[in-house]
Amino acid sequence: MTRGSLLPVLLALALGGCTSANAPAPPETNATADVAAVNALREAFVNAYNAGDAGALGNLYTADGVSQSNNQPTLTGRDAIIASQKAMFEQVSVKLDLQPEETRTEGTTGYDRGHYTVEVTPKVGGSATTTEGRYLVLLVKEADGAWKVSRDMDNIAGAPPAAPASTAP
Amino acid sequence: MTRGSLLPVLLALALGGCTSANAPAPPETNATADVAAVNALREAFVNAYNAGDAGALGNLYTADGVSQSNNQPTLTGRDAIIASQKAMFEQVSVKLDLQPEETRTEGTTGYDRGHYTVEVTPKVGGSATTTEGRYLVLLVKEADGAWKVSRDMDNIAGAPPAAPASTAP
Repeated sequence: MTRGSLLPVLLALALGGCTSANAPAPPETNATADVAAVNALREAFVNAYNAGDAGALGNLYTADGVSQSNNQPTLTGRDAIIASQKAMFEQVSVKLDLQPEETRTEGTTGYDRGHYTVEVTPKVGGSATTTEGRYLVLLVKEADGAWKVSRDMDNIAGAPPAAPASTAP
Repeated sequence: MTRGSLLPVLLALALGGCTSANAPAPPETNATADVAAVNALREAFVNAYNAGDAGALGNLYTADGVSQSNNQPTLTGRDAIIASQKAMFEQVSVKLDLQPEETRTEGTTGYDRGHYTVEVTPKVGGSATTTEGRYLVLLVKEADGAWKVSRDMDNIAGAPPAAPASTAP
């Protein structure tokens, strides 16, 4: 075999290693490690809430996080979120439970969607109130690999539509 | 120059074309065409709402879309969304306005976040009611390049915290 006949082979081998360069692979969806990290983030979120730890809760948001809880003002940035939660935890104890229904990551973004139950008890005394609702949380994987909450919103589910009234006599 | 001295050059050229193969480029963020398509989707959404066109509205969602409007049941799938909107449009006329505050696309996913104002007028007569709130919409770019709503949620903003009461005498 002459050197001349090797050239096409070497070029083919060199190019063969980068066949995906022209069509970059889409980011990985629901990578096991990412979903595990999001599950751990959700658990840490619940734990921080139930411990009344505003600082720990704030650190689970991106620095530019935006929190938009139902019937609450929009909180923009981690500092605003911490200040608001701190003020709340001075007034009440909270027992939060999150029931995820859907978790999806794609590359360095994702979301978590589900139901929540929260029991709020005033610290000055008085009876607890329990609220159930739905949440939608946007997630970002930061440069150091940590998943954080970047945006969140929640609301209350309405009852399913009533069955049509019978028209039978 | 001999053929032998050309070989390294050719190999370098061949490999140089795929330097990004080992570290795939992250998906493009806020590509001009994607943001324009999302803006057009938002406009089409408002137009379908204001025309009372449940079918047109449903077609702006992914087939597996999930809509979770405040105080409404969770609607899962385009068909459920269309049926619910059709029932609503038989009862009321709607005048919707969306004021986006943040639009972000990254590859084939994204979100749109902002405020809404909606005026609802009963078709049987009666006065209109106007509601203002916030929305968070998840977006997906489908295989044919069309952007669709995959998940949505809205709620009502609370007033900012009141200034502390003055303790001056």
